Amino acid sequence: MDCIFCDIIEKKESAEILYENERIISFLDIRPVNYGHTLVIPKTHYENFLSVPQQDLAALIEATQMLSSAIVKSLAPDGFNIVVNNGIAAGQSIFHFHFHIIPRFQSDDFKFRPNLKTYGDGTMKEFAEKIRLAVTS
Amino acid sequence: MDCIFCDIIEKKESAEILYENERIISFLDIRPVNYGHTLVIPKTHYENFLSVPQQDLAALIEATQMLSSAIVKSLAPDGFNIVVNNGIAAGQSIFHFHFHIIPRFQSDDFKFRPNLKTYGDGTMKEFAEKIRLAVTS
Repeated sequence: MDCIFCDIIEKKESAEILYENERIISFLDIRPVNYGHTLVIPKTHYENFLSVPQQDLAALIEATQMLSSAIVKSLAPDGFNIVVNNGIAAGQSIFHFHFHIIPRFQSDDFKFRPNLKTYGDGTMKEFAEKIRLAVTS
Repeated sequence: MDCIFCDIIEKKESAEILYENERIISFLDIRPVNYGHTLVIPKTHYENFLSVPQQDLAALIEATQMLSSAIVKSLAPDGFNIVVNNGIAAGQSIFHFHFHIIPRFQSDDFKFRPNLKTYGDGTMKEFAEKIRLAVTS
């Protein structure tokens, strides 16, 4: 299987690696939204967010928090976003799960604010009912 | 302290609650990017991503995955984004930590694709060195 992230994990492909442990590896995105844009990925190849087992997910979010803190300390951004793109329609381009950490600056050009919608009468309850029926606990 | 999310947790404020357990609660965002836009929050008030303890973070990401799966099953979006806005510059408006789950559709109007930057000679290594110095393991 051809996966650029698996090649980085196996050190077949170079990357500016920031941190790694037995479960995860983190490196700079080569096409950053802002400088310091960081990826955190599992060492096991999972296609997307829904296919990551809980133990890897916990390791990933813990490392993502630690690296966000490191980015705040070292680059002093005004804020940051954590982003997961799941599926092509959501902007996923590499099908090896990854968290993005995107340092943000008050004057940056990352247009992130969407047109917010409103729910018509009764519509919100309808959507909630649909989702609640699919919830597993 | 005045916090709309704490009021929802304490059932002083109404919300379309989708799921809750001892650590987290999830409900529909009343101003959705797309219908079905869901929030997942800790029951304890933490201001932002960096202040959430690991045990709550693990519970939050586990619930976020389960609810993403429920949204996929029930609303059949073309994809979804998981988003954390940390700080005003990153779009955070409520200072009680929350994950957004945003269902995405091929034809939706959520302009998410940023202008990607490139690193000049040696710049990428410089940024990586700065962050690596701040990494704690």
